[in-house]
Amino acid sequence: MLSVEEALTQLLADIAPLPVEEAPLIECLDRVLARDAVADIDLPPFANSAMDGYAVRAADTAGASEANPRRLPVVGEVAAGDPGTTPLPPGAAVRIMTGAPVPPGADAVIPVEQTRAHEDAVELLAAVGRGASVRPAGDDARRGQRVLAAGAVIRPGEVGLLASIGYARVPVYQRPRVAILSTGNELVPVDQAPGPGQIRNSNAGMLAAQVLRSGALPVELGVARDSREAVHAALDAGHGCDLYLSSGGVSVGAYAVVKAVLEERGGIGFWRVNMRPGKPVAFGRIDGIPFLGLPGNPVSSFVTFELFARPLLRKLAGHRLLARQIVPVNVEDGARGAGSRRNYVRALVRWEADGWHAVTTGAQESHLLSSTVAINALIVVPEGGGDLTPGARAMALLLDWPESDVGSGDR
Amino acid sequence: MLSVEEALTQLLADIAPLPVEEAPLIECLDRVLARDAVADIDLPPFANSAMDGYAVRAADTAGASEANPRRLPVVGEVAAGDPGTTPLPPGAAVRIMTGAPVPPGADAVIPVEQTRAHEDAVELLAAVGRGASVRPAGDDARRGQRVLAAGAVIRPGEVGLLASIGYARVPVYQRPRVAILSTGNELVPVDQAPGPGQIRNSNAGMLAAQVLRSGALPVELGVARDSREAVHAALDAGHGCDLYLSSGGVSVGAYAVVKAVLEERGGIGFWRVNMRPGKPVAFGRIDGIPFLGLPGNPVSSFVTFELFARPLLRKLAGHRLLARQIVPVNVEDGARGAGSRRNYVRALVRWEADGWHAVTTGAQESHLLSSTVAINALIVVPEGGGDLTPGARAMALLLDWPESDVGSGDR
Repeated sequence: MLSVEEALTQLLADIAPLPVEEAPLIECLDRVLARDAVADIDLPPFANSAMDGYAVRAADTAGASEANPRRLPVVGEVAAGDPGTTPLPPGAAVRIMTGAPVPPGADAVIPVEQTRAHEDAVELLAAVGRGASVRPAGDDARRGQRVLAAGAVIRPGEVGLLASIGYARVPVYQRPRVAILSTGNELVPVDQAPGPGQIRNSNAGMLAAQVLRSGALPVELGVARDSREAVHAALDAGHGCDLYLSSGGVSVGAYAVVKAVLEERGGIGFWRVNMRPGKPVAFGRIDGIPFLGLPGNPVSSFVTFELFARPLLRKLAGHRLLARQIVPVNVEDGARGAGSRRNYVRALVRWEADGWHAVTTGAQESHLLSSTVAINALIVVPEGGGDLTPGARAMALLLDWPESDVGSGDR
Repeated sequence: MLSVEEALTQLLADIAPLPVEEAPLIECLDRVLARDAVADIDLPPFANSAMDGYAVRAADTAGASEANPRRLPVVGEVAAGDPGTTPLPPGAAVRIMTGAPVPPGADAVIPVEQTRAHEDAVELLAAVGRGASVRPAGDDARRGQRVLAAGAVIRPGEVGLLASIGYARVPVYQRPRVAILSTGNELVPVDQAPGPGQIRNSNAGMLAAQVLRSGALPVELGVARDSREAVHAALDAGHGCDLYLSSGGVSVGAYAVVKAVLEERGGIGFWRVNMRPGKPVAFGRIDGIPFLGLPGNPVSSFVTFELFARPLLRKLAGHRLLARQIVPVNVEDGARGAGSRRNYVRALVRWEADGWHAVTTGAQESHLLSSTVAINALIVVPEGGGDLTPGARAMALLLDWPESDVGSGDR
């Protein structure tokens, strides 16, 4: 039997990032920059004022104070958006607004709060040094400078920076499209009442949600009945996708016609992974497209998606960090081991003053979908290590960022 | 001056969750359930087999062992999707597949691995107890049972559970639509080269990204020039949205025509919040729609969005936990205080064996967009507390979940 790490390593070795495309900036959020981003202009493009006030020569403010104000004639006004090309004569001031260009000749801004305004003049109540309240051109970045390296994740700050250097379209790795295949004569659509022996198809929606959360696009192929023709037709419908994702149909059961079709159309490996839930996982290629077959039990499907499909999708999307953060937790209610297998126990983790605390969702059988509800973590109970007693330390994969009550910033 | 907490409390007091709508299940991911979800059927709907094997009466397996196998005639076969209504006669077995209904009369399943198959019979190599490898009807949830309470966040596990009880459409709070208004004569679109005194409009895209990450939908109104007519027209274009979000135009600058228009069309409060960056924040209503005016400096806009706009959007969307998780960090490179103001310093936080570690992005002036790049946290430097020395402890708001290298589960 493979360890989880061995299976994941094998799986990732066969996956390369998708091709690069140019996408509109806002559609690149949380995607990966595929080429270095270079500033086409200085940022800021021109020296500008950090305050509302008066642009001056610093030398002209020397000695000014509340007690001994310095009076300068005001020879103009420059607002944000003005070209600001009129030079400042020596011994004069120009009214200036935040963000407006500092006129040629001026080398400082004195904030309005340190002045007294008159009709055509201003009294300066303080001296300022050269560069005061001026944001120099190129302070943030220089024209030609690499501001983001290929491989950077495009978060909101990166969106702002790319916008400021003209990246209306951005070279990013394509977003993976995932064809989700459900198989099983027992499955009926969500909006139907199941008849005798039938259940609703809950896995397709759950997997689609997990795909979305992994930054990829789900394409539901619907339910293929347990016949060769139906499975062939469903796979045909998935052409153009970057990954086939199936749940069920790849166990050792006699009704696994999926398995036979897969073996016809590609090279599929059937792995027994030393974990619980979700031992049987299939991986290979169908018509050249990667295929990942997850177990049919909803909980097994959920957990194996997190462990295998999500890193795979992140690699396709060009990410370099593929795995969930793992943190130590105090397992308040303890957790069962799974003998010689590693057990992944669903839990809700929260942060306390002394670290992470976890409460499990109780019964963990692989058909209990309710055990995957209101969770944000998978506790790892090591193989062969027995049960975790209440209060035991364990490692947990965090699936979701815990939100918190509105709290003070200095809690 | 208001504290951050006072400002946020005042702001949230004026906000109620949006109306409820019924949306297709997959579109409800990460949204908030507005009414209790009740199971319309037992889950699972019928007793079914957890294994491939033989459905039997447990009593008929008594005393069976490898050395002393018990032989039963095999009188049928039941697969997943079969109605499974044919009763099992005493002293017989039925071949059964995982997920198939356990026939009436059978009370246990013996896994295929503990049997030896013959033409019309099976040898049982072990005894099993009543209920072995049978998942009882209603084990996960009972018909009529509340499986999710109003207020639950719909994560992938919840999507699966809702699917299994027939929620093809789900009552959720509406997704907030946010009209993003940019003002300023200096702004040009991202795909244009700025002329003298001009800069590209980087805030609109950054805010749109932050809106998306807050689970809301951005609607960009474009740039309104600094004229009353332009601002009126832009506000008109935002009708139908749930929040107006502006950046810039609400400072004390003489060119803030926005401010004048806002005061005409609604009640707007101008708050000086005791924080840095981003002191001036405006909040009120325009034509009855909430309005939040953020400072125009990109960094101030970024930070005030996180502190004020995101909790507001989460409240509109029906969330009960509105704030980011705050955790203690070791500030490896130290951070500057902002005198009597609370300082929010951009940083990249990572988890180490001994807890959270942060490295700041260096210079923190509010025009340095590069300081918001490659960050996942805001370090809180308390008001009046001076600088943080390298290695000092501080609290940090985590904006982003740190991803990790592919690692073993038992690191």
